[in-house]
Amino acid sequence: MTQLLAELEGRLSDGALVTDPDLTAAYRSDESLMTDVGAPLAVVRARDVNDVAATIQLAAAARTPVVVRGAGTGLSGGANALDGCIILSTERMNRIVEIDPARRLAVVEPGVLNGDLSTAVEVHGLFYPPDPASADISTIGGNVGTNAGGLCCIKYGVTGNYVLGLEVVLGTGEIIRTGRQTVKGVAGLDLVSLFVGSGGTLGVVTEITLRLLARPAHPATMVASFDTLEAAGHAVSEMTASHTRPSMLEILDRNTLNAINEWKSVGLDTSAAALIIAQSDEPSPRAELDVEHLSRISTDAGASYVAHSTDRFEADELVTIRKLAYPALERRGTALLDDIAVPVAAIASMLIEIERIGQEQGLFIATFGHAGDGNLHPTIVYEGGDPETVRRAHQAFRDIIHAALALGGTITGEHGVGSLKRRFLRAERATRIDDLESGIKAVFDPAGILNPGKWIRPAPPSDQHPLRRHDRPNA
Amino acid sequence: MTQLLAELEGRLSDGALVTDPDLTAAYRSDESLMTDVGAPLAVVRARDVNDVAATIQLAAAARTPVVVRGAGTGLSGGANALDGCIILSTERMNRIVEIDPARRLAVVEPGVLNGDLSTAVEVHGLFYPPDPASADISTIGGNVGTNAGGLCCIKYGVTGNYVLGLEVVLGTGEIIRTGRQTVKGVAGLDLVSLFVGSGGTLGVVTEITLRLLARPAHPATMVASFDTLEAAGHAVSEMTASHTRPSMLEILDRNTLNAINEWKSVGLDTSAAALIIAQSDEPSPRAELDVEHLSRISTDAGASYVAHSTDRFEADELVTIRKLAYPALERRGTALLDDIAVPVAAIASMLIEIERIGQEQGLFIATFGHAGDGNLHPTIVYEGGDPETVRRAHQAFRDIIHAALALGGTITGEHGVGSLKRRFLRAERATRIDDLESGIKAVFDPAGILNPGKWIRPAPPSDQHPLRRHDRPNA
Repeated sequence: MTQLLAELEGRLSDGALVTDPDLTAAYRSDESLMTDVGAPLAVVRARDVNDVAATIQLAAAARTPVVVRGAGTGLSGGANALDGCIILSTERMNRIVEIDPARRLAVVEPGVLNGDLSTAVEVHGLFYPPDPASADISTIGGNVGTNAGGLCCIKYGVTGNYVLGLEVVLGTGEIIRTGRQTVKGVAGLDLVSLFVGSGGTLGVVTEITLRLLARPAHPATMVASFDTLEAAGHAVSEMTASHTRPSMLEILDRNTLNAINEWKSVGLDTSAAALIIAQSDEPSPRAELDVEHLSRISTDAGASYVAHSTDRFEADELVTIRKLAYPALERRGTALLDDIAVPVAAIASMLIEIERIGQEQGLFIATFGHAGDGNLHPTIVYEGGDPETVRRAHQAFRDIIHAALALGGTITGEHGVGSLKRRFLRAERATRIDDLESGIKAVFDPAGILNPGKWIRPAPPSDQHPLRRHDRPNA
Repeated sequence: MTQLLAELEGRLSDGALVTDPDLTAAYRSDESLMTDVGAPLAVVRARDVNDVAATIQLAAAARTPVVVRGAGTGLSGGANALDGCIILSTERMNRIVEIDPARRLAVVEPGVLNGDLSTAVEVHGLFYPPDPASADISTIGGNVGTNAGGLCCIKYGVTGNYVLGLEVVLGTGEIIRTGRQTVKGVAGLDLVSLFVGSGGTLGVVTEITLRLLARPAHPATMVASFDTLEAAGHAVSEMTASHTRPSMLEILDRNTLNAINEWKSVGLDTSAAALIIAQSDEPSPRAELDVEHLSRISTDAGASYVAHSTDRFEADELVTIRKLAYPALERRGTALLDDIAVPVAAIASMLIEIERIGQEQGLFIATFGHAGDGNLHPTIVYEGGDPETVRRAHQAFRDIIHAALALGGTITGEHGVGSLKRRFLRAERATRIDDLESGIKAVFDPAGILNPGKWIRPAPPSDQHPLRRHDRPNA
């Protein structure tokens, strides 16, 4: 190990290598709960692609795992250290290389903060849509690694919908480029989509070419309260089936509303079973027509209160309230945030299941999320000190995931599998898919050093490989 | 070979195996020019997934290539036979398994025609957007294999944007399922995107789960004529940069307009350098506002003639005229259709380059295409009988591709590499990407029997593999 550190010191740019445990401690884990955290050998704070390539080359030769890390805001343990690994931080690779207004694309290093990119492109009248709740503090590289979602997905899609091209360092230390600068293109396999969401298991992204849009109008906003989860769920289904194009369609349940109100006294109607907040950022007069139509749908679905507005301060205030949901819950105890998605038509059923699971385990579970995508964040709030409560919280976490699967959903809508949800993959898909993923990983990372031990299993030794290669066909 | 045929006969459903050369001839090639066509050993017209699995299992054991085929409307040689191969036709697997209006998804077998699916979902007020020009005669399976585009991509994206889940038979004959039923989901690597556009090289798709949208309004339409390609290109750039959301933004150059007019006398202004046709299918009044705005942009860009209409018959007529472009050109001689994409801002430069190449080679080149995506179809029309003319046509084809690359574009926007554009991949991307693709193919198709010899190179023998696996890391 001393030899690897000496080699790294010799190859890396000044100040990149950090081994002081007091300093490396801050790089050990992401924001997840319930995940294992190891002790890294060292942290490399890469300055450029050469630092990344040198780190991976030397690590591959020494068979030392490399865990790439953006800002560490992940919620699935994807960036957690393994014992003896190198944490490869991209935080210093934070240069916006280019913003091209004519071609409406940006080229960025992975350490650029999502919010900084948004601000930078706004000057040119442009818009980078992906907006995870962590936008102000998370990096584009991390967003790419997890295929991050956010509030705008219902209209604008997820991070992967904006990634045109990538520069990537493979597990061999080789630097490749894949993708393109055009909107359409089908030259070869879609390797860009393979890297997006791969969580540092196939390569380390060192440059990203992103598609930008024209900056939209200030949104018009609608809020509606419902006395029952069924009515709220029905309204969401109707809204997504309509011709409106909401740029946001969020839901907060009673427990979430209570937590926000208790903290900030914003005067939310906490007698409601759920609140829906929707926005449209279509150009005027479409936005107004959209929120009027969404209001009508809410009324027809039995809303107890409906209001809409084109005032931008009211709009901002409502989004702020929505964003208070998780911090308000965190103040109440240990907040175990889940992330499941179900078909939108099953939203009401999912909310009712979550309520049932909370009652069954005697736990406070607050649910909020991206209703328009069927992507919910049930959050189990509990006393971290009591082992029996912890056991019940973990049981509720599992039950919620299985309830989502039973409704045709997925174990993770936008946070990723990481290490947190590894064990649940079995319930979502056949183990044969694991073999395929292991095989793909071995192509990109033959030494198996890139973020091993997360959800992708190591490939079996070649001679036992279930997919061993045969001779070529005879034609 | 007799043994393989006997085994197939024993395993396949009645009538699936066809070996009569008079009958198999119709299955030998797709619609491409300039590509090699082999003589198949047999055609399997699969009835169901079991026929597909049995065919691939037996072919893998016999090391016999399998080339999957939808309707054979491809334009890149992707479905062309190899000597001694089995052509696996999905034409009989044409069942719409399910249309679920509540969850807005459809489950189909690969042989369902795109147009038939569109008609079937319309009854439920739903919409399957991908609309390749071949929609009436091409299959969903073929559309998935090529990640087909079409006229609506500017607003609705390509086939891959609608594929949620797949059932696939791997090169081992194993049946897997990948993907999901939810809008969002990040459980594992994005294998769905890897299969989409892979042209039958990684597996044979036997069932597809598709996302549907609410059926849009009847579109409003705008046409504008321009005296120069520069002005037309500028108008397209401005249109895509605006807040309008055209559902179609097509361009036809003078040569295309002439060919259509000569055939059908539809009264097009053939003095114009280019005609732009745009539509908006946003709900009223947005569609009208959109086409008014697009008209203003055209006028500002110097259009010589601009008109817009909400009349649906006029709209249909204009789309019909647009769709006459290729058949009108085919009537004039051998029509070698190219398919490149450039950044939208480079549209005018690309059109001017194409004109220059036509003049240089003394050839008639007509260009039309999906201007809003930067995706053009320059079509070289020539006398197929004269070797010198053929040589110049092929040279022009190559020059157009290299001109697109020089403008930051791609060698294929929506038709795929197939075998037609294999040689041009070298100019678009590093050969290292070829190795990665070969490695991925070996994971899904260890015997290398699935559509070999198209653009993915065979993986080198294991002991020379540049990406051979090493021992596991020590952590």
